[in-house]
Amino acid sequence: DAPLTVIAGPCQLESLDHALMIARRMAGICAAAGAGYVFKASYDKANRTSLTGRRGLGMDQGLEILAEVRAQVGCPVLTDVHGPEQCAQAARSADILQIPAFLCRQTDLLLAAGETGATINIKKGQFLAPWDMDHVAEKVAATGNRRIILTERGTSFGYNTLVADMRGLPRMARTGWPVVMDATHSVQQPGGQGGASGGQREFAPVMARAAVSLGIAGVFIETHEDPDSAPSDGPNMIPLDRMPALIESLMRFDRLAKADPLRV
Amino acid sequence: DAPLTVIAGPCQLESLDHALMIARRMAGICAAAGAGYVFKASYDKANRTSLTGRRGLGMDQGLEILAEVRAQVGCPVLTDVHGPEQCAQAARSADILQIPAFLCRQTDLLLAAGETGATINIKKGQFLAPWDMDHVAEKVAATGNRRIILTERGTSFGYNTLVADMRGLPRMARTGWPVVMDATHSVQQPGGQGGASGGQREFAPVMARAAVSLGIAGVFIETHEDPDSAPSDGPNMIPLDRMPALIESLMRFDRLAKADPLRV
Amino acid sequence: DAPLTVIAGPCQLESLDHALMIARRMAGICAAAGAGYVFKASYDKANRTSLTGRRGLGMDQGLEILAEVRAQVGCPVLTDVHGPEQCAQAARSADILQIPAFLCRQTDLLLAAGETGATINIKKGQFLAPWDMDHVAEKVAATGNRRIILTERGTSFGYNTLVADMRGLPRMARTGWPVVMDATHSVQQPGGQGGASGGQREFAPVMARAAVSLGIAGVFIETHEDPDSAPSDGPNMIPLDRMPALIESLMRFDRLAKADPLRV
Amino acid sequence: DAPLTVIAGPCQLESLDHALMIARRMAGICAAAGAGYVFKASYDKANRTSLTGRRGLGMDQGLEILAEVRAQVGCPVLTDVHGPEQCAQAARSADILQIPAFLCRQTDLLLAAGETGATINIKKGQFLAPWDMDHVAEKVAATGNRRIILTERGTSFGYNTLVADMRGLPRMARTGWPVVMDATHSVQQPGGQGGASGGQREFAPVMARAAVSLGIAGVFIETHEDPDSAPSDGPNMIPLDRMPALIESLMRFDRLAKADPLRV
Repeated sequence: DAPLTVIAGPCQLESLDHALMIARRMAGICAAAGAGYVFKASYDKANRTSLTGRRGLGMDQGLEILAEVRAQVGCPVLTDVHGPEQCAQAARSADILQIPAFLCRQTDLLLAAGETGATINIKKGQFLAPWDMDHVAEKVAATGNRRIILTERGTSFGYNTLVADMRGLPRMARTGWPVVMDATHSVQQPGGQGGASGGQREFAPVMARAAVSLGIAGVFIETHEDPDSAPSDGPNMIPLDRMPALIESLMRFDRLAKADPLRV
Repeated sequence: DAPLTVIAGPCQLESLDHALMIARRMAGICAAAGAGYVFKASYDKANRTSLTGRRGLGMDQGLEILAEVRAQVGCPVLTDVHGPEQCAQAARSADILQIPAFLCRQTDLLLAAGETGATINIKKGQFLAPWDMDHVAEKVAATGNRRIILTERGTSFGYNTLVADMRGLPRMARTGWPVVMDATHSVQQPGGQGGASGGQREFAPVMARAAVSLGIAGVFIETHEDPDSAPSDGPNMIPLDRMPALIESLMRFDRLAKADPLRV
Repeated sequence: DAPLTVIAGPCQLESLDHALMIARRMAGICAAAGAGYVFKASYDKANRTSLTGRRGLGMDQGLEILAEVRAQVGCPVLTDVHGPEQCAQAARSADILQIPAFLCRQTDLLLAAGETGATINIKKGQFLAPWDMDHVAEKVAATGNRRIILTERGTSFGYNTLVADMRGLPRMARTGWPVVMDATHSVQQPGGQGGASGGQREFAPVMARAAVSLGIAGVFIETHEDPDSAPSDGPNMIPLDRMPALIESLMRFDRLAKADPLRV
Repeated sequence: DAPLTVIAGPCQLESLDHALMIARRMAGICAAAGAGYVFKASYDKANRTSLTGRRGLGMDQGLEILAEVRAQVGCPVLTDVHGPEQCAQAARSADILQIPAFLCRQTDLLLAAGETGATINIKKGQFLAPWDMDHVAEKVAATGNRRIILTERGTSFGYNTLVADMRGLPRMARTGWPVVMDATHSVQQPGGQGGASGGQREFAPVMARAAVSLGIAGVFIETHEDPDSAPSDGPNMIPLDRMPALIESLMRFDRLAKADPLRV
């Protein structure tokens, strides 16, 4: 099996310089540790808890920055799409189109994304069981696109809390598609701060390590040089300066897991 | 307080004749029982469990039928919208635009719907707490539209199951907006039949009565003359010929509840 | 169907005078409203969140008080038992032995309670589905005791929260045993105050009314003249001076529900 | 940190020969892999789903077998206790007394167990949050007993399902007590077969590996030479002949985790 891929970035695009800084830093960390790297950032946060949450730079400027990151840093870039009409344009700048968890059952979005031929990363809805993703992935596969990734990001567990069920990772892997653990959003506390979501940053490395030990394809971690001033998801982001040690540690578990595959 | 409004229809539009048949029948039942009536049907089921689920007649034909139902039967009509670009057109034929539960955090959809001036019925996401709807409603209200309805349709409870928390109804009512109980979808078993959702039709009257006894503004019930052959949501629909007794019964509880308001 | 029975009392016994005061007051309120009445109090709180929570008067003194309440007020009394060895003694003073929710799967306790011939009220474990109670009730019934009551008190829903699923009431009623709604504990927030459980007193009447509207046999409500100084469950208790209006209101819904039985 | 301890056995005692066979086999497997070993078996299954479930050999015969296993195999033995009156006797034959999850809030049981001076393994209730175990452990510690183990065995997640939250392991470790993952019961489906609990044996190694990678003190795995004919918990037990490979694999993750401790 291929070494772990790390999907990491600042959640929301802030500026070209900021994106380049993070992408270069993360690409270097991942290369040093033997991990693959994909830069992730959103051009629009389309589903903030409240209207006052910052939404981002917008599609045109955001996609320009992503294209520039890809050109200058040489890593694949991932961004999320929010409607069928965005897919074709986004696929010109991004290598991987991500279907947000809330939207993972929207058939037209899945089809439009699939038809671009880009890799499609589908986040599992907080309201779905792992096996429900079989049908979700089939919607994309029906377009003939065979580049599909399934990402676990936690399941609703009472109010304002998520839980990540480790059984979901091997269960989703039965589809044959690579499975990614989103260590950032699975420790989110949705709406937990009233007008914004809270989070438990200290548990993101816990989720990442537990999942990587199961032999998954990738891990998704949002990072920022100053999480507490990030425009979104700050409470569950990992500070950039802690990423080298985290990635190195995860790669040790990844090598062991890949050498000793679980058969479920 | 005003008497209960019943939002009822066949889930998915099948034909003009079928829609008129159900609307006329339900309008008569509700008038006889002293209830308000809104016809509900979808022109597109945009988030079926699997790709093979029937999606419906499409927007143009569907909206024509809705306009015709409104004209011929004289009742308000409700339909759901799935993207910002659909709102203006849908608002020309429908009195109430419904935001699907999975989409209730999509800011652009809420704003576009609000801007039409139509009444906006927002279904509470299966992944949200009742208090999270405060911020959701504010997104619509920010457009200046003060015609908002909040609908409970169950919360994720483990895998492939929903639970309806009765506390959510008075909690959402604190927003000041009318609150509706969706008795059909709160007894849905999402994905519970593998490639389709299951349901527990026998419990829909339970959810309806419990909620109506709390003094809510409306109840949402899907109905069909032959639920087992309906193209969607059959397992949790109430047969049309059982609606007269159900509505009469609910009105007895509604009158009692409105005469004896709960103070929470 | 018989009119609603109200099971009410101060949670934990404090003194004979206090118990008599509450029992007399509640017996009067229920008689005036046409409801049955059972006095409920615990002689020992055997499973407090933390060791510092007050446990009560103990078995000997507690049972004496219960016997005195029964003799002086003339109402049946209910108390909970915590081990098989307590059942015979408790059954000499109490009409109804209650199996605590955490203990509802303990076979020996169910058998010992059943063998006393007293009525056995089994609280549904927070970790059980409604249909799991079929087997629980059968354990008591295997003793030949046919006086069984099943009580809903909420189901675990994420951390430190319970949810009461209204479907559980008619589902448990399929056993043929009378079903009671515990409106106090279903709005408990277990462990929600760190070293003690929190609660949402304002929602207890919501749960009571929704459940009574379904035609249940009884409702369980803890009450105290000064809930905030009660030794346990204060946060979810109803103040005694609000009970007359609450019971009268519930009886209006009970009469309507009994006249219009739900068939599930 | 010390190497992983494996707590393993046949769930329910069947006979002396059977217990010795499993204990010898497991002791050999663990010694070869560098793991600690504790033999686990119950003398009484006091909370079977239904009355017809087999309960076991009883306390006197069961404890004799445990004492014999300890003497002949030379490993510590663990058994569960169900009432305060059992603790002193059980502690004469068993090194570790286990508090069943349903009983983890029963103060008298915790105190009686603690007072024996034996090591006390407390299973976290399916209805508790990880932080609720702080108070539970304090009840035992109040007896002066400082030999406490906390075991995760899954949390209620909808009906008839459990989920194991990996965050719970480091959260419980903040108490300072060693933390064990019960890989067998966390994949149980309580009541999932109607009159008995189901399980997902194939996921027990998933839970074990994910938890061990976090650096826990021990793992709890029930095993049987023929799980499908075991008197209890068969559906989630690991066949004995698969234990050598499983334990060796877990030890590789344990060594890596202990060399690279997570700081939460």
